[in-house]
Amino acid sequence: MRHYSALLTDHYQLVMAFSYWKLGLAEREAIFHLCFRKLPISSPFLVVVGLQQVIEYIANFKFSAEDIVFLSSLKAGDQPLYPQEFLHYLQQLRITCDLDAIPEGTLAFANEPILRIRGPLLQCQLLETALINIINFGTLIATKAARISSAAGGDPVIEFGLRRAQGPDGGLSASRSAYIGGCAGTSNVLASQQFGIPLYGTQAHSWIMAFETEPEAFNSFAQINKSQSALLVDTYNTLQGIKHAVEVGLALKQENEHLAAIRLDSGCLVKLSKQARKMLDKAGLYETKIMVSGDLDEHRIQQLKQQEAPINLWGVGTKLVTCYEQPALNAIYKLSALKNKQGEWEYKMKLSDDSKKSTLPGIQQIRRFYQQGYPIKDQIFDIQLGNTTNDDFMSTTYVDLLIPILRQGILAYHLPTIEEVRSFVIKEVNAYLNYPNPYPVDIDKQFQLLIMQLSQKLKSLNG
Amino acid sequence: MRHYSALLTDHYQLVMAFSYWKLGLAEREAIFHLCFRKLPISSPFLVVVGLQQVIEYIANFKFSAEDIVFLSSLKAGDQPLYPQEFLHYLQQLRITCDLDAIPEGTLAFANEPILRIRGPLLQCQLLETALINIINFGTLIATKAARISSAAGGDPVIEFGLRRAQGPDGGLSASRSAYIGGCAGTSNVLASQQFGIPLYGTQAHSWIMAFETEPEAFNSFAQINKSQSALLVDTYNTLQGIKHAVEVGLALKQENEHLAAIRLDSGCLVKLSKQARKMLDKAGLYETKIMVSGDLDEHRIQQLKQQEAPINLWGVGTKLVTCYEQPALNAIYKLSALKNKQGEWEYKMKLSDDSKKSTLPGIQQIRRFYQQGYPIKDQIFDIQLGNTTNDDFMSTTYVDLLIPILRQGILAYHLPTIEEVRSFVIKEVNAYLNYPNPYPVDIDKQFQLLIMQLSQKLKSLNG
Repeated sequence: MRHYSALLTDHYQLVMAFSYWKLGLAEREAIFHLCFRKLPISSPFLVVVGLQQVIEYIANFKFSAEDIVFLSSLKAGDQPLYPQEFLHYLQQLRITCDLDAIPEGTLAFANEPILRIRGPLLQCQLLETALINIINFGTLIATKAARISSAAGGDPVIEFGLRRAQGPDGGLSASRSAYIGGCAGTSNVLASQQFGIPLYGTQAHSWIMAFETEPEAFNSFAQINKSQSALLVDTYNTLQGIKHAVEVGLALKQENEHLAAIRLDSGCLVKLSKQARKMLDKAGLYETKIMVSGDLDEHRIQQLKQQEAPINLWGVGTKLVTCYEQPALNAIYKLSALKNKQGEWEYKMKLSDDSKKSTLPGIQQIRRFYQQGYPIKDQIFDIQLGNTTNDDFMSTTYVDLLIPILRQGILAYHLPTIEEVRSFVIKEVNAYLNYPNPYPVDIDKQFQLLIMQLSQKLKSLNG
Repeated sequence: MRHYSALLTDHYQLVMAFSYWKLGLAEREAIFHLCFRKLPISSPFLVVVGLQQVIEYIANFKFSAEDIVFLSSLKAGDQPLYPQEFLHYLQQLRITCDLDAIPEGTLAFANEPILRIRGPLLQCQLLETALINIINFGTLIATKAARISSAAGGDPVIEFGLRRAQGPDGGLSASRSAYIGGCAGTSNVLASQQFGIPLYGTQAHSWIMAFETEPEAFNSFAQINKSQSALLVDTYNTLQGIKHAVEVGLALKQENEHLAAIRLDSGCLVKLSKQARKMLDKAGLYETKIMVSGDLDEHRIQQLKQQEAPINLWGVGTKLVTCYEQPALNAIYKLSALKNKQGEWEYKMKLSDDSKKSTLPGIQQIRRFYQQGYPIKDQIFDIQLGNTTNDDFMSTTYVDLLIPILRQGILAYHLPTIEEVRSFVIKEVNAYLNYPNPYPVDIDKQFQLLIMQLSQKLKSLNG
């Protein structure tokens, strides 16, 4: 289980935590929801990933002695920023919140609550930054991987992105999310060790360059790696490279082995893959696959498919692991209810000059309605109001997506394996073809009324 | 000192390492260089960052017992992929390479060697992925931070990006590089603890929403945080929010305290900052600063400056920590020389159907020429050929940028502190205004000749 520092947060969370504590509001029961305002990368859905890391983060949340020493060193002017009493409070602190979430890998849509946290106001506040960070990045890469894998239409997509990822851990997390999103494997050895992801690898230009000639480099490699050999053919001249690879393929065949693949990493991939396939087939090397790499993403793969490039394996790096097209998601985590002194829930929402930036109040749930086994719409409702669905949907089945994950900080959920999550994603993404498009997400009627009334009340109080 | 797993690599590095070992080429002395083919984000320079992490990575490089167990579990068909003897070799392996590098924070340009590694071929190969990953990300964010800080023209830029960064560690590394690149501080508490970066924080919308009314929320916060208070004014209605903040400012003034800042996070920042400044000044709150946040980058800051928005502090998040505009750099790490059986250097270069993708051979050095204290041009030359500069430059001074960092894997360099690196960057970036534009980087004449001859030789061997 991975360790996250309790200091992995924005400073204002600590400032607010201290201020709540000082005002006697630290233990006041609160509810926050995490959601995405918009869908990314022209994707019609989000593949929500990160729940397991969220659980690890919350379950192990603790300020270490070193953390407290650091916090006690912070000054406001020449005074300590935080009094000893507060630091002592932090040192004792463990998370006792309830967490409800949609299971990892579920398809979700804009404005839907992904996580619901319920517990002491101070605790909920302290979790914000890390929760957003984890869910943002996991969801971003899993969604991108799902799009790329869909474009490849069943061909294996291998994630090759470590060198271009945002830091070592950016690469590791990306490999995990890419696999969950549908990739068949990774080049990242550490990710394979940590998460059991299948490993793939070919060879670098430096291998070819280490020998006098390309045939010598190919033969030396094949002599050792036999039927595992995948040869990179573009170090000097790609067509010559393919020719040299064919010769290696024929030699391997005589030993009852076979050349696994050739890899094209530059040039016109349509023309080169067609020529390579022709040359390989002509030599009877039907088993040898053609792998391509080099700035691939779902758009490029779709083009290559449309031009009937005979490619079997897709090596995808930069564009996947950074989600190059849109390298950040915009999850928000907003207070939606707070108990008053009398122990009654008071609903909260953020208004905004820009109405799109308003947030939903309450204790939210998503109900997904099904017909003939496929989702037909989602409805966001408030648990206290209940679902006030109209009659049209009375005959359909439904599932409420947010399920209990932690109760009082304790795991109340059977964590699926990464393979289970990945299979679930692939099923969800395939099923999406049968969803209505665009997919309707509405807000329960009674809940809409409540939102309107609350919004008017807040405007009159603060407008 | 940070620990990096030796498995933080692409699988093909291990496949090649094994193949070199098997062919008896593992210990053959090699030279690799790391360089960038292109400058990113329309920046006229790169701020090279990551050397300290590279040193930590190399100095601690070691396959752990668990790593070896994992590698021994890998199969090719039903056979172990790697024989025990090779795994034993890996377990004993420590890095004994020489590393030369340009000091962290130095401005560099396209095609210039940033790192030079010299040592056993197998070791050099194993380092590739992590070195590229570390230098790519550090340089990307430091360069972006330098551009943003320049646009802010001396105003403090605070990095607020953790929640939108690519994973927890993506956020941590980004905070470090952003500070080195010129930011004045971070919101990331962990980064402050780890690297001593000054902390900044204001308050979130949730604070405002936790109270019945905005004035109550502001007053409660100010009552505790006094002259440290920075108030977020856009939760409900920004102009009302500013009015409420002014009232708090006046109340603080009566206690001989002052309101530190207001923060604008949405809406038209030009109009709102001008109105806010007017309202604050009218109330005599000259000390209260105006901070803005929300999708800022160097382009947006420049616009706001041009429109004379009276902004004092810039909170920059997503666009900085992911380098949203171009979220990955393209460092390459290429074999450039290999000793033959007779112990003589043989120079290596990658050709390509696309000539821009060719690489430089040899044992490279960059000479930076100065006139009147400022750089006037760089020249890449080969150490064995020496620098064959023409007479025009005989009268100028110069510095050779690649300096010894590790010798036989041992530190041969006095590592600067993060503050020293940051000051150096700020000096370099300010000095850049006096560089010729575009900045000339050429290749030494004799070296050019050598490259042409080698290229012809390789073409005739492999074309």
